[in-house]
Amino acid sequence: MDDSYALAATLSRAARTADKPNAADLSHHLSDLAKARITSPLKAMYKYMQRPGMLMLAGAPLPRFFLWRGLPPPEYFPFVRPRASISLFGIASELTKHLQLALQESISAQTLARNSYKTTQIGFGAWLWSWISGGATATDSWSIPKHDSDPTRIQLASALQYGTAAGLAPLAQFIHAFTERVYQPGYADFHTVINAGSTDAWGKIVGTLCNPGDGVLCEEWTYPSALATAWPADIKPVPLPMDGQGMTAEGMDQLLGSWNPDEHDGMSRPRVLYTIPVCQNPTGATMSLERKKAIYALAVKYDVIIVEDDPYYFLQAGEYEPSPPARAASLPKKTETDDEFIASLVPSYLKIDYEGRVVRIDTFSKTICPGSRLGWTTTNPIFAERIERANESSTQSASGFAQALVGKLLAEEWKLEGYLRWLKGIKAQYRDRRNLMVDALLDLSHASLDARQAGAGFEYWTRDALARDEKGFVAGIDGGASEKGGEGAGRRILSFVSPQGGMFVWLRVHFATHPRFHSKPTNELLAELWEDLAEHNVLIAPGTMFSARDFPQQPPKEEGALAVAEEGDAFFRIAFSTATAEQIHEAAKIIAQRVEHFFRA
Amino acid sequence: MDDSYALAATLSRAARTADKPNAADLSHHLSDLAKARITSPLKAMYKYMQRPGMLMLAGAPLPRFFLWRGLPPPEYFPFVRPRASISLFGIASELTKHLQLALQESISAQTLARNSYKTTQIGFGAWLWSWISGGATATDSWSIPKHDSDPTRIQLASALQYGTAAGLAPLAQFIHAFTERVYQPGYADFHTVINAGSTDAWGKIVGTLCNPGDGVLCEEWTYPSALATAWPADIKPVPLPMDGQGMTAEGMDQLLGSWNPDEHDGMSRPRVLYTIPVCQNPTGATMSLERKKAIYALAVKYDVIIVEDDPYYFLQAGEYEPSPPARAASLPKKTETDDEFIASLVPSYLKIDYEGRVVRIDTFSKTICPGSRLGWTTTNPIFAERIERANESSTQSASGFAQALVGKLLAEEWKLEGYLRWLKGIKAQYRDRRNLMVDALLDLSHASLDARQAGAGFEYWTRDALARDEKGFVAGIDGGASEKGGEGAGRRILSFVSPQGGMFVWLRVHFATHPRFHSKPTNELLAELWEDLAEHNVLIAPGTMFSARDFPQQPPKEEGALAVAEEGDAFFRIAFSTATAEQIHEAAKIIAQRVEHFFRA
Repeated sequence: MDDSYALAATLSRAARTADKPNAADLSHHLSDLAKARITSPLKAMYKYMQRPGMLMLAGAPLPRFFLWRGLPPPEYFPFVRPRASISLFGIASELTKHLQLALQESISAQTLARNSYKTTQIGFGAWLWSWISGGATATDSWSIPKHDSDPTRIQLASALQYGTAAGLAPLAQFIHAFTERVYQPGYADFHTVINAGSTDAWGKIVGTLCNPGDGVLCEEWTYPSALATAWPADIKPVPLPMDGQGMTAEGMDQLLGSWNPDEHDGMSRPRVLYTIPVCQNPTGATMSLERKKAIYALAVKYDVIIVEDDPYYFLQAGEYEPSPPARAASLPKKTETDDEFIASLVPSYLKIDYEGRVVRIDTFSKTICPGSRLGWTTTNPIFAERIERANESSTQSASGFAQALVGKLLAEEWKLEGYLRWLKGIKAQYRDRRNLMVDALLDLSHASLDARQAGAGFEYWTRDALARDEKGFVAGIDGGASEKGGEGAGRRILSFVSPQGGMFVWLRVHFATHPRFHSKPTNELLAELWEDLAEHNVLIAPGTMFSARDFPQQPPKEEGALAVAEEGDAFFRIAFSTATAEQIHEAAKIIAQRVEHFFRA
Repeated sequence: MDDSYALAATLSRAARTADKPNAADLSHHLSDLAKARITSPLKAMYKYMQRPGMLMLAGAPLPRFFLWRGLPPPEYFPFVRPRASISLFGIASELTKHLQLALQESISAQTLARNSYKTTQIGFGAWLWSWISGGATATDSWSIPKHDSDPTRIQLASALQYGTAAGLAPLAQFIHAFTERVYQPGYADFHTVINAGSTDAWGKIVGTLCNPGDGVLCEEWTYPSALATAWPADIKPVPLPMDGQGMTAEGMDQLLGSWNPDEHDGMSRPRVLYTIPVCQNPTGATMSLERKKAIYALAVKYDVIIVEDDPYYFLQAGEYEPSPPARAASLPKKTETDDEFIASLVPSYLKIDYEGRVVRIDTFSKTICPGSRLGWTTTNPIFAERIERANESSTQSASGFAQALVGKLLAEEWKLEGYLRWLKGIKAQYRDRRNLMVDALLDLSHASLDARQAGAGFEYWTRDALARDEKGFVAGIDGGASEKGGEGAGRRILSFVSPQGGMFVWLRVHFATHPRFHSKPTNELLAELWEDLAEHNVLIAPGTMFSARDFPQQPPKEEGALAVAEEGDAFFRIAFSTATAEQIHEAAKIIAQRVEHFFRA
């Protein structure tokens, strides 16, 4: 580690709470690539860079690679008015002050107030009425000055210059403090590294921890872009079975405990696990703390690094309550404190991580905006340093525009409390969207299907007592549906577990009771149903796109490419994050109608 | 190639000039990694995404990986006021207009006028006086609206959403048009791909074209960060000899023509060449068109892909003219047209590239600001598509903040002509800086050294007739200096080729005449002199940092790590891009004094 890194480590140590251990040494997990990442031997240079009065003609006064760059002067940034104009005049007069003021502004923003979204409201969009009608919601206007007399504050002259891989200092400090306050890591010397978005962060993490030929444990249904990032480097997914809470500890223990490389094309036992533990993409599943503890214990047992990709963390909104009184009772108090808000979220893996074996990926994509391409990684100092090296020889740093604008908003305008207030509002918005989506799916008025509660989930049943297929045979008496075949009227054809917020409902289609179940592969039936829905103007995502077992997905319609899903079940992912209330209602209605029609055929 | 890519290809074809060929098929250059980059089979999905009236619950209405993402609604971006508030009211009244206006602004900027810097001025900083005193220079204020009735214009609601790897459309179109206008590629179907900065672009290019174990041809002195990016993937530099114009065609022909893998640890003949052709980092060398043509012809002969990393292209300012009349005569006319300006720059490799075997890297770092982390890659369609895939599974796209702000400035405020006007001013600024730097080095009033012009370069000679070392022996009568030993008084101890703009002077130190030349490795003498300069408050970069032969550089002071440079020459890189005129003068004075003193010892 070089001097700059030592500095960051000191900062981190200063923030340490006395009763927590430091991270264990897990450096044996570093990949060959990570070990081969070189740094520049600049110790001697660094000493002189700190010295006042130095004539700097070496390039950027920054550690490591940046010294090698040619550095344009800030006068030539069109977004920044020239600094020289101030220092040219030594006169301490009103004129100077006036000039200085005139030179202050370069980029301004008008942003929503931190309390724009109510924390207890029902019905997303409703707040707009209060705002238009002169209600409480307001906007803030602020500017990022070109220079600030306080060098620790965000200013364009430095934010738009080459930056360090560690990121803009005020934003980096905010992120470190936020991580400590909200996630409460179980060890003291955790590091946070700003990155250029979660996908880039994951690519660098997998490159830091895996060698070609290695496998990565993951949920059997998962975000395929994560698999696509690792795949070209010959790092393959190793799917784990899931239930309504995500991957199961039993499945993980069984797989790793009995791992035999010969049964896995020579792949040695995976040492990295990739998980989306909250409102998972695509299944919407949220892991409980107990589940996380069980998985973590297995990670310790089998020496596995857990990569926690958690973009939906602040979109977790608790259980769905169908009855209005229960729903009202489940709302947070208007006086909810920050501690209560934090406690209302399932703890991150970081909180139970006493060894530093969790690498957590955070993003501003879902809470500020995806276009920021900005997030951060929290991990132990050894991994963090190698990830910084990976940044240095690729993206170098996240965009200075993004860091300055998001950094100003969070670190200097909203501050920690203000951002927490914003997140409470965002959480409430997604709770309302989730309620709306599930309400719409359960609304029987538009469908000829029966909706029934079944444990934590819901099921759709046909109203026909016994359906017959085109050849006149009774359908629905084998496969996964057979046991239910006799329970009252109809066949169970759809089911889902209500998500705890987030953006997705994972709709399970029980094709075993479909009349053509025995004559067609399940995924072909799924593709047919998907096309029928699309032809009726509802575009949802076929679950096959998210399969870690069949990754990379083969183009549909290709001969023999369609795998038969076990037990005749297949899935759709319904995204409810952007549609309007009317669109969600209309889509739910069409889905119920078309599915019912499809199972009648 | 999927549909989105076909679309981009159509765009590109539309811009094609009739008389140019398309790129050759160079797909045999794709690396194993590039071949393994998978895309999503979304053809069926894409068809429905285009259909009006679709209820989109599939995720992002964007091609390839983005469909898989959960998409937050723009109402929740704090930088964007909610769209819904406008459409909620159907009333076409003054109220609506008023509301709409009030809702327009989200991010504003105050930027320098495109003509802030004179194209013919002498003395950087001088313009400030005219500005302060109410002269011509002004600033522009502009805002990026949240929504625009013209969907083709830049607006935050889409710029801050997930973007495509191809980048924000107005910026992407500007970049394509700029590339065609300024670089005039020699083939028709070139593609431009927006990236997150040059280093990231280079990493993706080298990953697209090289397999582990491959070599990359490069200048023997080069930007070490480029080597550090490739190194961990076992892609090693293969240095080519340089002269005052950069790498030589003879050196390249000789190396490739006689390539024997056995003499290179089994490495097969390199198929990729990395070059910084203009105002090179660190040597400041600029390749002439003739040199480029010769290198290109060899690239065709040996089937080599040329990667042209050209951050200093618009900083090239022509030859240094020591005499004031010649300097004044070399200035561009005040009425210089855009065509004349473009013609004043040595053509890019793109212009002579009739096969599509050049991959050009452009960046906004030196012309707008480094913090943008924004640039673009120009190459043939096949390579471009694989680079886009690499973007998709890492950075995905450059930051939306950066794309929106730079895109608005260039594509909608300045437009092509305005940006060219800005570049003329930037070029003039760097010409003045270069003149100032070389003037300062040649100013004998502060040194006890003689400066002499020697061809395209300059030399410093001591004034002592015959120096003796501490033991009383005559020094400077062997090594590289021996032949000059008798020519008049003094020893040649420093020399440099005046750079054609850019940011760097490459100062050659002729250690062969140093009294301790025979008792110390040259690089140790260099390190001693470097430390002496630093102790006297001048920080410059030792040339050893930029050696492709000794990459990665070993920590100095380590036993046996210092290589002996050939002929007793070693180098310093002096960066003149950020220092003030006073600092540059002071530094030059100190350098001359300390070097003279060092050679006296």
